[in-house]
Amino acid sequence: MTVVTAEFTSADGPGSSALLTDQYELTMLSAALADGTWNRRCTFEVFARRLPGGRRYGVVAGTGRLLELLGRFRFGEEELAVAESFLDPDTVAWLRDYRFTGDIDGFPEGEFYFPGSPVLSVTGTFAECVVLETLVLSVLNHDSAIATAAARMVSAAGGRTLIEMGSRRTHEQAAVAASRAAYLAGFDFTSNLEAVRRYGLPGAGTSAHAFTLLHTGADGPDEKAAFRSQIAALGVGTTLLVDTYDITEGVANAVAVAGTGLGAVRIDSGELGVLAHQVRRQLDDLGATDTKVVVSGDLDEYSIAALRAEPVDVYGVGTSLVTGSGAPTAGMVYKLVEVDGLPVEKRSSHKESKGGAKRSVRVSRATGTIVEELVYPASIPVEDVVRGATASGLTARAVTVPLVRGGEIVDDAPTLEQGRDLLAAGLHALPWEGLGLSESEPAIPVRFVAGGQQSSAHSHPGGAQ
Amino acid sequence: MTVVTAEFTSADGPGSSALLTDQYELTMLSAALADGTWNRRCTFEVFARRLPGGRRYGVVAGTGRLLELLGRFRFGEEELAVAESFLDPDTVAWLRDYRFTGDIDGFPEGEFYFPGSPVLSVTGTFAECVVLETLVLSVLNHDSAIATAAARMVSAAGGRTLIEMGSRRTHEQAAVAASRAAYLAGFDFTSNLEAVRRYGLPGAGTSAHAFTLLHTGADGPDEKAAFRSQIAALGVGTTLLVDTYDITEGVANAVAVAGTGLGAVRIDSGELGVLAHQVRRQLDDLGATDTKVVVSGDLDEYSIAALRAEPVDVYGVGTSLVTGSGAPTAGMVYKLVEVDGLPVEKRSSHKESKGGAKRSVRVSRATGTIVEELVYPASIPVEDVVRGATASGLTARAVTVPLVRGGEIVDDAPTLEQGRDLLAAGLHALPWEGLGLSESEPAIPVRFVAGGQQSSAHSHPGGAQ
Repeated sequence: MTVVTAEFTSADGPGSSALLTDQYELTMLSAALADGTWNRRCTFEVFARRLPGGRRYGVVAGTGRLLELLGRFRFGEEELAVAESFLDPDTVAWLRDYRFTGDIDGFPEGEFYFPGSPVLSVTGTFAECVVLETLVLSVLNHDSAIATAAARMVSAAGGRTLIEMGSRRTHEQAAVAASRAAYLAGFDFTSNLEAVRRYGLPGAGTSAHAFTLLHTGADGPDEKAAFRSQIAALGVGTTLLVDTYDITEGVANAVAVAGTGLGAVRIDSGELGVLAHQVRRQLDDLGATDTKVVVSGDLDEYSIAALRAEPVDVYGVGTSLVTGSGAPTAGMVYKLVEVDGLPVEKRSSHKESKGGAKRSVRVSRATGTIVEELVYPASIPVEDVVRGATASGLTARAVTVPLVRGGEIVDDAPTLEQGRDLLAAGLHALPWEGLGLSESEPAIPVRFVAGGQQSSAHSHPGGAQ
Repeated sequence: MTVVTAEFTSADGPGSSALLTDQYELTMLSAALADGTWNRRCTFEVFARRLPGGRRYGVVAGTGRLLELLGRFRFGEEELAVAESFLDPDTVAWLRDYRFTGDIDGFPEGEFYFPGSPVLSVTGTFAECVVLETLVLSVLNHDSAIATAAARMVSAAGGRTLIEMGSRRTHEQAAVAASRAAYLAGFDFTSNLEAVRRYGLPGAGTSAHAFTLLHTGADGPDEKAAFRSQIAALGVGTTLLVDTYDITEGVANAVAVAGTGLGAVRIDSGELGVLAHQVRRQLDDLGATDTKVVVSGDLDEYSIAALRAEPVDVYGVGTSLVTGSGAPTAGMVYKLVEVDGLPVEKRSSHKESKGGAKRSVRVSRATGTIVEELVYPASIPVEDVVRGATASGLTARAVTVPLVRGGEIVDDAPTLEQGRDLLAAGLHALPWEGLGLSESEPAIPVRFVAGGQQSSAHSHPGGAQ
């Protein structure tokens, strides 16, 4: 039985997060504690070598969840029992007292990232940083993959309403995080009640085909009875699902029962573009001119874009959203880049990393359109980098913000709502080609600045992750 | 703050599972409670219309997790507060007393499924069954997708050892379920410590590149120091990661430090087939003939199969496993098929479902090779179906087993270990073409038997999910 202390209890589900960790983090810890290297001051950096699927941007998501889980990264008796099964007593004792006391800097949620962007930097002793690798990557890789797919859908929807309804297509807890990531990216509603509870997201949902089928009696199907019942319970502003038997009859039944004040009808199957037109015309002919058309059923950013010219008011998106629309993981890595002030770099084939702790500045034209990202050594004051970038008439702003200082989350850590606003603004600041859905290059280049001087580009290092 | 009662506490993480649910399940409940249809006796069936990615079989997984979560599908004060925000008081009162009291039958974990297989049947009042839809599908769709990909990898590995190491590439809780599904499918070890704790799986893990990089001093990199430290902590039987700087030097350093008794070396980058040969030869030349070769780095079932002729002893698999190797969800649906003893069917375009509660029997040749699945009405005694199928010299066995009776999990509910054994045996019973990795047809047909007489085939209904 899990022993839950009050300290570990939180809105993200109570309990320790410490075992959401690969075994090798703790065997490395054990060896480092024994040989004295454990307390070397290290920086680990999270970055992506490439954007999956030829995406033009990535969206950082999950940072808020990660900080919350970090507070519960503590080893209680149950976690220590697992550690004892393969670790020496000194390591187990160290874990018993574990609490992250270092610093974390990173991109706020809702910010774009590109290949090589230093999305998160974790600084402290080797020991206290290395054990966080798995949890950091699990959260950021999942949530960023969903938010990136969601942002493409938001952009493709061109201001129409989007409902996230993919819970049944992914792990039951991943579904809650996916709802959050979709909201961050600009989705309007979620079907997931735990996301409503945990993050205060707006919920949505009315009925499924089962409810219509339930209203089958000795005389056969009775769609009108189902519609009457739903309206009695949810009011005339509800959304009636009209495609259980025959869509044209379904729309006729819906308006016959609800009147022309019906909120919406939903179509969940068939060729949605054709059906949306047909249903819109039928609704208008029946006088239900304000009744909205909701479509769902295997939508992704491409089909959403393809429906932009059709009379669709609301998109319900499931499978493709929660599976990242072909890219279910962001492919970020967590790499040691600095030890005791010295940059370190791996040299194995196709997996080069750039040494040294780094920060980012985003450079824009006067119009607000971003033109490049400058990545600079953390040792350089950000003001110097901004000054150098703005000298040529461009504007620049720091992307990297402090998130944790001395193990404590900073007071002004970005919120989910701030992230949502940041991304909404960001989608207007991308170069126009950055909004394209086809496979292409990153929307802007990432340039590495060495000692104040701009140097090697790093946007396409290639190779496997 | 979550209020956790002892009743809800379990090894799957404490707390209620009731809000892992789409809002529309509860609005349908509300309408059904009001119009009196709530207590019609219903059967909902879980099935897949097709196998994603041209797979030849699917593997059922997650049933054990689902039954555990079902026991925690209870509405406490916090869950009720969310319900109160959009539901009438009668519905909230009903939820307060909710406890599933019906029956569940289904395929045991580790069993194959094909398009149309009745993977799970949930029978009870409409009200008590409809609210379970989202949770049932989340668990089965996720876990079955992972187990199916994993089974293809196990089959491709041809008896070599497989380590699951994908936690960092998926949601932190999905990672634990993925570890479990991989083990079910025949993986030997997991890197995930929570899966070790929660399910008792064998754990594995030694070190990452960061550990080698940590051992960088004023004189530069010192790979030997890292290896010495790891061996001091973990013993000479450990696995040394040899590709941080130069693989040939890494292997030489590894044997120089560990001696010829070294357990294994790991290669995590480069052209693994070529490198495995080169490293094997180098190890043999150095006298380390018993030192194993572990490979990792973007492996999937295809690259595992491609390495079968190479001197590889152990595969470490991450991203492709936890993302279902291109099919991150199994696409199962939960459909109302029977109301008060009468079959019901949806008729909307491309989404036909077959009415009536159903069970399955698997028919095999005397050699043990399965030849087809017979799906029959639950009203027919299984003995009659088995007798009809075996008359022609074939053998038949029931696939569907009771899982829940009157809301209680049956005493002999299948265990994870039983599921692992079942699948291992199943992989030997598939027709040989069923083990192919390329896109194709399901390995066996699913035939629907009406009233004891065999009728319409249903293996390729087509259409969207």
